[in-house]
Amino acid sequence: MGKAGNWKETAASRVADCRIFNVSSSDRISEDGKSGTFYLVNSPDWAGVIPVVDTALGRMIVMIRQYRHGTGRLCLEFPGGIVEKGEDASIAVGRELTEETGYRAEMIVPLGLLSPNPAFMTNTFHAFVAEGCVLDRVQALDEHEEIEVLLVPENEAIDLVGAEDYGHALMTATLFLYMRYRGLCL
Amino acid sequence: MGKAGNWKETAASRVADCRIFNVSSSDRISEDGKSGTFYLVNSPDWAGVIPVVDTALGRMIVMIRQYRHGTGRLCLEFPGGIVEKGEDASIAVGRELTEETGYRAEMIVPLGLLSPNPAFMTNTFHAFVAEGCVLDRVQALDEHEEIEVLLVPENEAIDLVGAEDYGHALMTATLFLYMRYRGLCL
Repeated sequence: MGKAGNWKETAASRVADCRIFNVSSSDRISEDGKSGTFYLVNSPDWAGVIPVVDTALGRMIVMIRQYRHGTGRLCLEFPGGIVEKGEDASIAVGRELTEETGYRAEMIVPLGLLSPNPAFMTNTFHAFVAEGCVLDRVQALDEHEEIEVLLVPENEAIDLVGAEDYGHALMTATLFLYMRYRGLCL
Repeated sequence: MGKAGNWKETAASRVADCRIFNVSSSDRISEDGKSGTFYLVNSPDWAGVIPVVDTALGRMIVMIRQYRHGTGRLCLEFPGGIVEKGEDASIAVGRELTEETGYRAEMIVPLGLLSPNPAFMTNTFHAFVAEGCVLDRVQALDEHEEIEVLLVPENEAIDLVGAEDYGHALMTATLFLYMRYRGLCL
């Protein structure tokens, strides 16, 4: 894979600014002389978190349901959002957790890094688990946000994610990382 | 969530054509009078497949490693690609499986549907498992494709996905669906 592993950019230009992302084109050549123009979607990094609440009934997960404009429908998700410039991703998810759900975490643990789409997206998704969550305040939502908060038993979350109509790929991937972290993979 | 569940498009326009996707803007109003312009990334549907080879050493998964221009690095993935217009997604993954790896499947089983990113992507990812795969022919790659094929024990694939440097979110999500299908979630 040595040859394909190294492409060099020879020219780049901005194609479109779309507020939450921008699109650029990149002219590239490979070490063995292939060339092409590749379109890229650039966005700030994103972070998402699986918030765990320990109850007498076992572990519960805080989930949210909100309208999403890409699919044009409601979507079941874990809390999360954009990592602001210069912000630590664990700080970002702690903030988003509290803003979106009112819960705060005792401890935020990294689960791993994912590429939302290595083919044409350049940013990184930071996955976390938030242990020992407690309800602390009311939601503080942005202008376009309207978010329903659900407290779901852990085993039901495993059944629901990627199964309710159709799933959110980043959330489903985060749940996989959570299950490996928790030792729930056979 | 009734109010937020219904936004109507009042105007739309094409922002950019980027070969493997296009970008559009959509002016929308909600039932309770909110309004906004939302940018959308539109692409054909994608399909991916976890190809299983039954051997004397247990279940093996066919994986591929290829250079990806979004992240600018090699990425470990399951086979897959674009669903052509009018094509059945299971046919698409069977075709991609054989082109990318040389393996063909005895049976292709749907694992579920995922949204790559419900916030701004409008397409659907179709996840499959390919049972009873056998090596049948040589790879038939597209112009820019250079693909290394790996045969990985199932338990190692579970360790590797989402862990090798950083993972491909769609592949990690597909693996979660596979584990639920296989009964590998505790």
